[in-house]
Amino acid sequence: MSTFGSLYRVTTFGESHCAAVGVVIDGVPPGVPLGVEDIQPQLNRRRPGQTNLTTPRDEKDRVNILSGTELGYTLGTPVALMVKNEDQRPGDYSEMNLYPRPSHADWTYLLKYGVKASSGGGRSSARETIGRVAAAAVAEKYLTLAHGVEIVAFVASVGHVTVAPPEGYSAAADHEKFMKQWDSWWTLLKGVSRADVDAVDVRCPDKDVADRMRARILEAKEAQDSIGGTVVCVIRNLPPGLGEPCFDKLEAKLAHAMLSIPATKGFEIGSGFAGTEIPGHVHNDPFVATGDGKLGTKTNFSGGIQGGISNGENIYFRVAFKAAATISQSQHTATFDGEDGVLAAKGRHDPCVLPRAVPIVEAMASLAVMDALLLQLSRKAAASLIPPQPINPILTGKWKPQSSSAPTIVANGEIAGEAVESDDK
Amino acid sequence: MSTFGSLYRVTTFGESHCAAVGVVIDGVPPGVPLGVEDIQPQLNRRRPGQTNLTTPRDEKDRVNILSGTELGYTLGTPVALMVKNEDQRPGDYSEMNLYPRPSHADWTYLLKYGVKASSGGGRSSARETIGRVAAAAVAEKYLTLAHGVEIVAFVASVGHVTVAPPEGYSAAADHEKFMKQWDSWWTLLKGVSRADVDAVDVRCPDKDVADRMRARILEAKEAQDSIGGTVVCVIRNLPPGLGEPCFDKLEAKLAHAMLSIPATKGFEIGSGFAGTEIPGHVHNDPFVATGDGKLGTKTNFSGGIQGGISNGENIYFRVAFKAAATISQSQHTATFDGEDGVLAAKGRHDPCVLPRAVPIVEAMASLAVMDALLLQLSRKAAASLIPPQPINPILTGKWKPQSSSAPTIVANGEIAGEAVESDDK
Amino acid sequence: MSTFGSLYRVTTFGESHCAAVGVVIDGVPPGVPLGVEDIQPQLNRRRPGQTNLTTPRDEKDRVNILSGTELGYTLGTPVALMVKNEDQRPGDYSEMNLYPRPSHADWTYLLKYGVKASSGGGRSSARETIGRVAAAAVAEKYLTLAHGVEIVAFVASVGHVTVAPPEGYSAAADHEKFMKQWDSWWTLLKGVSRADVDAVDVRCPDKDVADRMRARILEAKEAQDSIGGTVVCVIRNLPPGLGEPCFDKLEAKLAHAMLSIPATKGFEIGSGFAGTEIPGHVHNDPFVATGDGKLGTKTNFSGGIQGGISNGENIYFRVAFKAAATISQSQHTATFDGEDGVLAAKGRHDPCVLPRAVPIVEAMASLAVMDALLLQLSRKAAASLIPPQPINPILTGKWKPQSSSAPTIVANGEIAGEAVESDDK
Amino acid sequence: MSTFGSLYRVTTFGESHCAAVGVVIDGVPPGVPLGVEDIQPQLNRRRPGQTNLTTPRDEKDRVNILSGTELGYTLGTPVALMVKNEDQRPGDYSEMNLYPRPSHADWTYLLKYGVKASSGGGRSSARETIGRVAAAAVAEKYLTLAHGVEIVAFVASVGHVTVAPPEGYSAAADHEKFMKQWDSWWTLLKGVSRADVDAVDVRCPDKDVADRMRARILEAKEAQDSIGGTVVCVIRNLPPGLGEPCFDKLEAKLAHAMLSIPATKGFEIGSGFAGTEIPGHVHNDPFVATGDGKLGTKTNFSGGIQGGISNGENIYFRVAFKAAATISQSQHTATFDGEDGVLAAKGRHDPCVLPRAVPIVEAMASLAVMDALLLQLSRKAAASLIPPQPINPILTGKWKPQSSSAPTIVANGEIAGEAVESDDK
Repeated sequence: MSTFGSLYRVTTFGESHCAAVGVVIDGVPPGVPLGVEDIQPQLNRRRPGQTNLTTPRDEKDRVNILSGTELGYTLGTPVALMVKNEDQRPGDYSEMNLYPRPSHADWTYLLKYGVKASSGGGRSSARETIGRVAAAAVAEKYLTLAHGVEIVAFVASVGHVTVAPPEGYSAAADHEKFMKQWDSWWTLLKGVSRADVDAVDVRCPDKDVADRMRARILEAKEAQDSIGGTVVCVIRNLPPGLGEPCFDKLEAKLAHAMLSIPATKGFEIGSGFAGTEIPGHVHNDPFVATGDGKLGTKTNFSGGIQGGISNGENIYFRVAFKAAATISQSQHTATFDGEDGVLAAKGRHDPCVLPRAVPIVEAMASLAVMDALLLQLSRKAAASLIPPQPINPILTGKWKPQSSSAPTIVANGEIAGEAVESDDK
Repeated sequence: MSTFGSLYRVTTFGESHCAAVGVVIDGVPPGVPLGVEDIQPQLNRRRPGQTNLTTPRDEKDRVNILSGTELGYTLGTPVALMVKNEDQRPGDYSEMNLYPRPSHADWTYLLKYGVKASSGGGRSSARETIGRVAAAAVAEKYLTLAHGVEIVAFVASVGHVTVAPPEGYSAAADHEKFMKQWDSWWTLLKGVSRADVDAVDVRCPDKDVADRMRARILEAKEAQDSIGGTVVCVIRNLPPGLGEPCFDKLEAKLAHAMLSIPATKGFEIGSGFAGTEIPGHVHNDPFVATGDGKLGTKTNFSGGIQGGISNGENIYFRVAFKAAATISQSQHTATFDGEDGVLAAKGRHDPCVLPRAVPIVEAMASLAVMDALLLQLSRKAAASLIPPQPINPILTGKWKPQSSSAPTIVANGEIAGEAVESDDK
Repeated sequence: MSTFGSLYRVTTFGESHCAAVGVVIDGVPPGVPLGVEDIQPQLNRRRPGQTNLTTPRDEKDRVNILSGTELGYTLGTPVALMVKNEDQRPGDYSEMNLYPRPSHADWTYLLKYGVKASSGGGRSSARETIGRVAAAAVAEKYLTLAHGVEIVAFVASVGHVTVAPPEGYSAAADHEKFMKQWDSWWTLLKGVSRADVDAVDVRCPDKDVADRMRARILEAKEAQDSIGGTVVCVIRNLPPGLGEPCFDKLEAKLAHAMLSIPATKGFEIGSGFAGTEIPGHVHNDPFVATGDGKLGTKTNFSGGIQGGISNGENIYFRVAFKAAATISQSQHTATFDGEDGVLAAKGRHDPCVLPRAVPIVEAMASLAVMDALLLQLSRKAAASLIPPQPINPILTGKWKPQSSSAPTIVANGEIAGEAVESDDK
Repeated sequence: MSTFGSLYRVTTFGESHCAAVGVVIDGVPPGVPLGVEDIQPQLNRRRPGQTNLTTPRDEKDRVNILSGTELGYTLGTPVALMVKNEDQRPGDYSEMNLYPRPSHADWTYLLKYGVKASSGGGRSSARETIGRVAAAAVAEKYLTLAHGVEIVAFVASVGHVTVAPPEGYSAAADHEKFMKQWDSWWTLLKGVSRADVDAVDVRCPDKDVADRMRARILEAKEAQDSIGGTVVCVIRNLPPGLGEPCFDKLEAKLAHAMLSIPATKGFEIGSGFAGTEIPGHVHNDPFVATGDGKLGTKTNFSGGIQGGISNGENIYFRVAFKAAATISQSQHTATFDGEDGVLAAKGRHDPCVLPRAVPIVEAMASLAVMDALLLQLSRKAAASLIPPQPINPILTGKWKPQSSSAPTIVANGEIAGEAVESDDK
């Protein structure tokens, strides 16, 4: 319902016009240094009203830590975070109450709850994402400290204006050029930083493309219209072995996380939809030794995940956002009672949510990988406590078969735990 | 881990070389007529070896109902279903043990579990999906009986060969033509049936496109290569109100479900990635009265879901599958120990998994909506038991505001439960 | 971790010295009239400092509704409730930091979290129960409105002073007298009200026993000591059919709920430990027609639950509380470092927590049955949507077998849903 | 519903007359040596028909490992275990169908599911516990290997015949004698083994008491009656730090686990109900250094758990079982239709289930602690990965305060992880 995760459990609360929005995080590791200064910056990045591209309302979302820390460290108990709503009027019961807003949640919330609240589909408001971003800032603090994980998202397209993606595969095409474009893409993902992204108002690190995106957004603003786009996100330095093999594959958790963000319409991991046209002998990522006794992959069409489990390479994915449903022009539609009419435009609205979506995409990525990490830590720790087994032919990859059809039982004294342990230092 | 759903809970078990694969389904409603004849057909549709386009091995997967039914009806207790593995050899410890297969799960399973089983990433095998398809057949039996739900998937593209999708949006383009193409698309989704789909070996209902798909697959086969594609799925007659508003939006559950299928790389709902280019005033779906006191939408860019909640329109989505990782040609890669080498090809492999993926996509869709339905039934039933409240201004959409800024408290005697109850008959 | 329930999900947060304690409730049915006035009274009943029997500190716990309601009705979205801590000092780093308090959580919290917070085992503090009591007040509001459920707890013993329990069974004893005592017990449970209980400071409705309890508590106070006791709780008007058949039997959920209250040491349902001495032919509760087409039971040794499922009779159970660990006398013990020493007494402490435990026991009972109810509502609603089956021999209890060894297939047109529906009007 | 645990997830299936009963275990650590020989013995101990005290039917429950192991080691994937039912007749549709059996689940299952199956409350049958015992044998294999955990249960009372429990507390009584009796009790729990228990048919290690228990059981058998009793269980060598602080206290999980066993009526941990009469200054367990840098407790009234968290001392608890509801004499009761009548006795039934309950109590204890252990391993592993913090006054118990009111910030370089790590080697 309103909870995400099984070991890093995030439960958000609040809608547009209640007293406060916030989150309770259960499962925060004890001993993490944590203060408001770790959380507020991401909330600020999420906040609207920062440039003339976004809606002018300044929500001034100041976070309060209600519980779970003492003297600047987490206790291991639930961390509750709260942001007060400044506008707590129970809503404006006028035209909005006659018309369900098209492509909004007003109508479906009424279908679901039988309740017609002033805030319409209150929980579907972007304001609900405050709790997510706050919870993710705590997760990120841990992920950075413990593993040096880096999660960076950026606007990859606005309408048809897009950061040059790799060309589509064609048997006839220049293979070398095809691979070069993918290499450039992987190189971009290797280097891009939040500083790069935030240096530009539209949060696209490619300044030329950013200029055209800005123009496209202003065009929508001019036309009292809205426009969608895509956000790309990369996760670097994530330990391998994360993700559960069956229903909770890491990409499935990420897809779940991303499609839970308001206004999203799609998700793709690694080569994604474009990859469906690349034949297997090209798409397969060959292994190479990385020099530290591990294996890496030469290419990364897989997007850092194989069989649902992280392999240590960079994870990257793309999320589609539709044009915002609230627009500054009137719309022909029907009232709740089914009468045809015109829903008048009211106020000015954000013509493009993409720049604000960037920290939310990063946030949901943090929550997904943090939960996967805590699950895998339990498995690894449990396996490491099994005493060495005298004969254990199927454990460890270092074991070499002597013949083709039967396992050679060797007393190698190696244990699952140790083998696993060495994987992600 | 290996469980999907919270009220319709599906737990699969089994890997390639163990005694059996199967599933335990907890939460099956009591009183559903159920026999092997309800489950076996979908397993047969999933089975490889049916045409010369798929791998020749015939697995003959006969399902056994171990528990949960009596005299042909479900008891409401866990339904356990089992399919024996015919090939239970603990695997072939030869070359496959030296090389982790590129873009397979062999390497990541070793990273995750510290165990190198003969079947490599055993749970990532398509064979694991038997349990899912069987569990979904039970869900479908209920969904059909209780709501007349129809779930139909088909192959929408193989490589670059694709069922003509609606054209991309462009401000300059012919708006009428743009809308006509989308209308054709929605019409196709309204009418397509499993019979249509199964009438063609590649499971694409458009015969001309199917011919070109077949050619593309045979080309891959010839080249000892593999090729990916996309599957589109439509869900019809689903009650409105399904999906939870925050993390468990219906599209998020569907995305989770789809990305948990082996070899998937992407998911999009409704207008999807193409929709990111459509401006808000076009993309918004205006409401219209449906004549039965409800509202429908004129267009369906939303894909039947708004704010994470089903609105009663058809739900449709697309899933991307990469080219199969197992190919019939040798590959340059590295051994588990990091030595460069060539993994020799062995046997013949399915050049395109798309046709077999169709029932699996349908299955995961069934599981996702069945779980969402049981959750919503609890909420509706709970609300319907609250006695009428004397004044209840925010309940029911039929209430009309008298003034613009304050709610008019009316003693309308209408209750949440009744209002909800009437929504999905 | 810090969440209770699967459909009525209660997540508490907060420890002694943080900014606030509280709770997020997910799964509250929409349309429930709810205000602070529904929650505050139970918090007041929980509050210490009300009589000279309890600790004098007045915490003045005022509840704030942060989210989930509008115009006095629940929205169906998460209800967040918060109570500020008045004393937010990060603790007193003196002697308490040298000594883990005996039979407190200071030592085990350090073992668990590796963190030594000023509040010791902060989450094990009775203050954490504020969130539970608040969440339960919301559940109770619904349970009362929708089903007329009544939950009443009272102090049944303090030390050796006890409300006369039924005599132990002995084959030699007077059977009539034995049954009479149980009948009196069941009669007491049928009639006792919260008003009766709150009319007496020790919250025992039997005034004579209450006088002796009070004396026992004052004796402990005098001796700078503490004393335990038991609380009995009865749940009336609960719909039948609640509780899951296997791991989540209703008594198992209740036991879980009760043993999660600080300082509890035991739980018994119905005849409980005394019942282990009663032979089967006496202990079995024979069925009788109740006149409305249902069955009741003549006796109620079962405590209203059979096979883990409520049968419509009153549910009653007993909870054991140990003497409070914090006492007003010094104690020989060891420091964290293992040095022998004397932990000096500090301040005055509540000699007996039993009276304050009464609303907490009621609260946890509410949470357990509310969750079980929402689960069963989903199952019932799902079954009721299955269309009538032509032949359905195993459905409905009204069907009569014609012969002893084979089922007679009759076309009775009765359906699971209808049969179930009539059970709990 | 039918699942127990969150990281060691056990899902059972099957009822009396279906094809098989069994269990799927998700979350088994990889690399555990496991074969049928690890599981069958506990199933044999659970099996009826072993002495003339139990029901003569020999079910011959042979377990099959369907998945999750290879070459004798667990893979980390779901382990599915199955036991075929020999008697798969869909039941005897005679008198049992007219009468719901008193204090059985026939009536409540009909209320819950609207289905009247031949096996009555099929899942409430003791046969369902086969899956639990099998799953627990796997957990025990791990617990023994990794931690040397020992779990031993025994019959502590049959009817009024009881293994001498410690005397009740009385201020007037001989304190020394009181403590001596508790010391004997704790000594008994320290030493008792499964071999001791199984050496006696009634599974009570005290032979004199066992003789009187046997007589009491035979008396019940003679009288065509049944009799209840209690089982005591001790868990030794459990690592400290297990159990979650709030709702999922270790004793709450144990209580949940125990009350989910058919026919149970009560649970008490440590001093239990008797402990409610012991004043705080006696009941508190003072700390003592154990010589290895840790603390133990001089007494163990707490039962090895404080604040819901294991402290490293022995955990012990008692479970109450009512007299079996199925008796070999006729009973006055009502039919499903509410007509008075006599339910005739049929066959011979087990007069006392206590000896068979012993392995089931052990099994549920294993499942509860295994799940708690995996949760804590994740937390410990996560904390251990946080790099040393320069100043961290609240971490580690070795830090000594310098003054009473303010923390002295010391750069101790000690980290949560290390402190935790050293706790349970």
